[in-house]
Amino acid sequence: MASNSFGCLFRLTTFGESHGVAIGGVIDGCPSGLRIDLDFINNELARRRPGQSAIVTQRKEDDEVEFLSGIFEEKTTGASIGFVIKNKNQNSQDYTHIKDSFRPSHADFTYHEKYGNRDYRGGGRSSARETACRVVGGSIAKLVLGHYGIKITAYVSQVGDVKLLKDYNKLDFSKIESNSVRCPDKMIAIAMESRIKAVRKVGDTIGGCIKCVIQNVPVGLGAPVFDKLHADIGKAILGINAVKGFEYGSGFSSVTMKGSEHNDLFQAKDTLVTTKTNNSGGIQGGISNGEDIYFNVAFKPVATIMQSQESVDKEGNKVVVEGKGRHDPCVVPRAVPIVESMAALVIADHLLRNKTAKL
Amino acid sequence: MASNSFGCLFRLTTFGESHGVAIGGVIDGCPSGLRIDLDFINNELARRRPGQSAIVTQRKEDDEVEFLSGIFEEKTTGASIGFVIKNKNQNSQDYTHIKDSFRPSHADFTYHEKYGNRDYRGGGRSSARETACRVVGGSIAKLVLGHYGIKITAYVSQVGDVKLLKDYNKLDFSKIESNSVRCPDKMIAIAMESRIKAVRKVGDTIGGCIKCVIQNVPVGLGAPVFDKLHADIGKAILGINAVKGFEYGSGFSSVTMKGSEHNDLFQAKDTLVTTKTNNSGGIQGGISNGEDIYFNVAFKPVATIMQSQESVDKEGNKVVVEGKGRHDPCVVPRAVPIVESMAALVIADHLLRNKTAKL
Amino acid sequence: MASNSFGCLFRLTTFGESHGVAIGGVIDGCPSGLRIDLDFINNELARRRPGQSAIVTQRKEDDEVEFLSGIFEEKTTGASIGFVIKNKNQNSQDYTHIKDSFRPSHADFTYHEKYGNRDYRGGGRSSARETACRVVGGSIAKLVLGHYGIKITAYVSQVGDVKLLKDYNKLDFSKIESNSVRCPDKMIAIAMESRIKAVRKVGDTIGGCIKCVIQNVPVGLGAPVFDKLHADIGKAILGINAVKGFEYGSGFSSVTMKGSEHNDLFQAKDTLVTTKTNNSGGIQGGISNGEDIYFNVAFKPVATIMQSQESVDKEGNKVVVEGKGRHDPCVVPRAVPIVESMAALVIADHLLRNKTAKL
Amino acid sequence: MASNSFGCLFRLTTFGESHGVAIGGVIDGCPSGLRIDLDFINNELARRRPGQSAIVTQRKEDDEVEFLSGIFEEKTTGASIGFVIKNKNQNSQDYTHIKDSFRPSHADFTYHEKYGNRDYRGGGRSSARETACRVVGGSIAKLVLGHYGIKITAYVSQVGDVKLLKDYNKLDFSKIESNSVRCPDKMIAIAMESRIKAVRKVGDTIGGCIKCVIQNVPVGLGAPVFDKLHADIGKAILGINAVKGFEYGSGFSSVTMKGSEHNDLFQAKDTLVTTKTNNSGGIQGGISNGEDIYFNVAFKPVATIMQSQESVDKEGNKVVVEGKGRHDPCVVPRAVPIVESMAALVIADHLLRNKTAKL
Repeated sequence: MASNSFGCLFRLTTFGESHGVAIGGVIDGCPSGLRIDLDFINNELARRRPGQSAIVTQRKEDDEVEFLSGIFEEKTTGASIGFVIKNKNQNSQDYTHIKDSFRPSHADFTYHEKYGNRDYRGGGRSSARETACRVVGGSIAKLVLGHYGIKITAYVSQVGDVKLLKDYNKLDFSKIESNSVRCPDKMIAIAMESRIKAVRKVGDTIGGCIKCVIQNVPVGLGAPVFDKLHADIGKAILGINAVKGFEYGSGFSSVTMKGSEHNDLFQAKDTLVTTKTNNSGGIQGGISNGEDIYFNVAFKPVATIMQSQESVDKEGNKVVVEGKGRHDPCVVPRAVPIVESMAALVIADHLLRNKTAKL
Repeated sequence: MASNSFGCLFRLTTFGESHGVAIGGVIDGCPSGLRIDLDFINNELARRRPGQSAIVTQRKEDDEVEFLSGIFEEKTTGASIGFVIKNKNQNSQDYTHIKDSFRPSHADFTYHEKYGNRDYRGGGRSSARETACRVVGGSIAKLVLGHYGIKITAYVSQVGDVKLLKDYNKLDFSKIESNSVRCPDKMIAIAMESRIKAVRKVGDTIGGCIKCVIQNVPVGLGAPVFDKLHADIGKAILGINAVKGFEYGSGFSSVTMKGSEHNDLFQAKDTLVTTKTNNSGGIQGGISNGEDIYFNVAFKPVATIMQSQESVDKEGNKVVVEGKGRHDPCVVPRAVPIVESMAALVIADHLLRNKTAKL
Repeated sequence: MASNSFGCLFRLTTFGESHGVAIGGVIDGCPSGLRIDLDFINNELARRRPGQSAIVTQRKEDDEVEFLSGIFEEKTTGASIGFVIKNKNQNSQDYTHIKDSFRPSHADFTYHEKYGNRDYRGGGRSSARETACRVVGGSIAKLVLGHYGIKITAYVSQVGDVKLLKDYNKLDFSKIESNSVRCPDKMIAIAMESRIKAVRKVGDTIGGCIKCVIQNVPVGLGAPVFDKLHADIGKAILGINAVKGFEYGSGFSSVTMKGSEHNDLFQAKDTLVTTKTNNSGGIQGGISNGEDIYFNVAFKPVATIMQSQESVDKEGNKVVVEGKGRHDPCVVPRAVPIVESMAALVIADHLLRNKTAKL
Repeated sequence: MASNSFGCLFRLTTFGESHGVAIGGVIDGCPSGLRIDLDFINNELARRRPGQSAIVTQRKEDDEVEFLSGIFEEKTTGASIGFVIKNKNQNSQDYTHIKDSFRPSHADFTYHEKYGNRDYRGGGRSSARETACRVVGGSIAKLVLGHYGIKITAYVSQVGDVKLLKDYNKLDFSKIESNSVRCPDKMIAIAMESRIKAVRKVGDTIGGCIKCVIQNVPVGLGAPVFDKLHADIGKAILGINAVKGFEYGSGFSSVTMKGSEHNDLFQAKDTLVTTKTNNSGGIQGGISNGEDIYFNVAFKPVATIMQSQESVDKEGNKVVVEGKGRHDPCVVPRAVPIVESMAALVIADHLLRNKTAKL
């Protein structure tokens, strides 16, 4: 099992249920001497936090991280970094209605079958609250990457059928945080917000897409066979709640292309080799080639809806499940920092792994 | 690094370059007592082999696997299973033209930068020949799965813009091997073949899609957080050469759906809980729910085209690279058994992992 | 790196420095449905705790463990089990004298060279306080083993030159906790206590040995090649602070034996195969054979002595280091539960691993 | 399971039974650009090979290694290095007598119970022939270490009660290979040889010790908690067939020492910090301190003796087992290169791991 760890050399291990005492984790393998910028980390957590805007869940979660080890005089020591985020204001009564019933498209049924003993309160371990620990790990990974000048930026590119068609390098990334959807195009952002509000009004939810761009990655990260850089990124992203698809570079659109159109021709300026196009998405043969890495993520509509749904209980009896509590009508605005965090964990890991490639 | 291994309990480690002495691998963790059906394994290899039909590369590769250990009196012993596939008829002169130049959208440049010393002959370690070892590992995984009644079927669902629109459960899987494209719909298969022949005629290549269906998976395979079943399948698939995208269940189409449409309602027949629809693709909360697991894979057009392309050499000089040798105009027909194999490795691994979930 | 985790399927990850906010850890892979007996765990921690008797350090550590996740209604859920033990009464002024100087035979110098940034207070990550987390992990492993009837017992067999010569099966294990040395023989225990008090009186320390016996282990735990059961136990034990040697079964005494003396002859009673002697220490070919597993551990004298010692500081200047604080004159009495815990982690891990040996 | 791999970044995976087609393995993570000296590797294999002298088994094994991948123009490429050693002259009839019976103190019984299906011929996977693959892996690790000036030397320090008492730094290591026992002291070597010949004459066997010294290790290899350098070396060594004990530095003799005697005082010459004594065995807090690493290994007498022994068969019937074939009367002379190899694998692994310790 041991499935609560991610990464090889830079490794995050997490624990915690939404209604337990606390969630938290351990970051192992972070190089010593890294300055820990707490404001940065807290800001990252704030981007994920419920209640930050009108279009996300109004649940209150403080998400204050407390570091317990591995940092001395504001710098990492090379020892494992333990941290906790306390669970506050959790109201367990909210969840007695799902104690014995399986919510459609949730993890209730599969957990029950696999483990028998299940913490049903608020989804327990399957709650998206768990992703706060990924943001803590990811933000420390980002600090490592920052040391090397690597930058990771994600934004919402689609909500339902409202789609941002512009290429990412035509966008002003500084605008991403200027609206509650985290879409860098103001007009599209407004349309997305309306779409989200409209589904919420009828107690429904909607899917969406996030695009992520990783810039200034050195040539050489990744590995030839199973641990191709995009394969590790793909696993990282597919491990986020509600993700249903992942594509990088030209992605699914490459299917209808011809080799002569799709191939990225090399060119050299002095000793710097670059490509004229970037259908490869910055990765060739599983290894970064120095161009921007970019990928696309599909999120399904949130499973918890404020409508009655047919289901069954543990004994196989028909039941009706009612959505309760405060939930996101669309997951993508809050998922932006999570996508960045998971990408950061992978890049930091491969950055360290790459240090042993050559003698 | 250690990136040439895949899996946790059922683990495949591979080695080998296209023009070395041999390729091969080690399968570790295969339970003892499994009957090894050599005909089955050879047939799986034959499905991947070059030269099997008019629309794939006419290169000759024998792909005869020799097992060296771990099998005694036709059954596995629990010891690691070593195997080799000899490289024959390799003509190294074919490749001197790429010794110092970087083929567009190949791994030449990234390998050169990462490792310095590169076996350039036929792509070396980045050659798709490496996938034969995955088929060996995958076919043994399939024998494990067969013991539990689990069945994995993949087929070509798209070539360029020729697309098979029918739902997989409307198809006759027994027809997949009846044509050279591996598409179960005869008319669509003919259209795909024409499309492939047309691009080949002009020395070009084309992308495509493969759909894979895993049937009769028990409830409970997978894990809650990072090792979600679809995340591990996604990594497995994205590690195959030329793959650019992966989606499972409703995938990217879920983006425009509402929760009320997308949710899979539970129903019970006696003690058996099933879902009315299967947008979840057989996986909820990262764990199999007993429904069919299905996913979609996007392959880019093959990078080697029979046309002249601009590029650069190691010194940054402009060069023109000419496509040489015998290559596939479209990768998907031969990738079908590879997709199945990687999926089989993941399911076999999680099948073993699941044996320790409960006390 | 990622060196703060131990185990494959039953895995403990720890964090924490002696003078940080807290120490703690994550237990991943514990099967669901295990009843967690908090009294038992607290009692295990009490056995390790400083200040429990006159012959150990009089430092106060409360060692109260708080479980944060993975347990619901007193049973494990299969989710990762997070826990913390707060650090209390830590007086950081005590340690300013070693901020820039290297204590002889401590980890000060090697940490400084390896990591640069070092939490020098109380040894930081190298403090034996870290072993409290191993006891938490080990006591949960013991609960798993208890479910299968497996029992682990360790005791002090030597302090300095005071040695318990009796064979372990001539001893009454129920007497181990009846004295402060944890030696089951009353007279030898008294001699050991005197020895410890004598060295403490002169500000010195003394080494010792612990013997550990694992009973009722099923046949089949372990693995043939690198992960032999005794190799994994050996690593576990050698990872404990101050351990300098490990031997199992006949150990170093086998060196002077002949094969005809050393071989354990098989005998059968009905279908039960046992051995007439047990020089193998319950393990043959790396795999348990159902006999008692037993091993011996050598601990060096504690490095912190209440005497002046020559040393150097960071700049290479000669300095004199004075022992300060409250330290153990002999580590073995408190190391007994730690040895048991590490052994329990290995056996629990291999118990789970063994579930996938046969089809 | 996956127990046939060793190492984290520099990783050896092995396969093969003594009477199968071949044994072999895969070395993953070896940095690119390493010159492969085949003569050196073959010489290392020759040191392990049966039949090399009058006091070892006269079995013929050619032990010719064939590298299949990962090396191009005599240098490593960073790709996984596959290799095989064919099994020749294997006479399977020799082993029918142990098909159904369990040889005392062999792995027959435990393999049978764990796996059911067992390759009984020549011990199968439990045969010491497997260690040839470790020597291949270890000799490549030695080439890596040689690049950094690190040197590993092992020698026989004891056979039965014939013991070499001199400290290792009083010995002339260049004499180790000058006699068939691999003991650097000529007179002791002669005594050891007589001892071995004497036990062989009566169809018996005898145990022994090997001492290993690792010189010129840089400061900083190893890790604080579970992966202490000596813990990883200990596991490596305890995984060798017939090993019953491991101690490093002062080892078991530290038990009777006082802290004031045992502590290694630091001294500085210019900026170089060294210790006056080396009871620490070159490792403090789990991390190398730049002094010589040295350790001691206890080997039991070989289990196969040329005498009749009582045992049982699969059905629990009493049987008499007769020793057959050509076996070593004492394992230590041929184990010398195996001990060095396992140590080399650990040091190479930690050398790579250490590259990511600091930012």
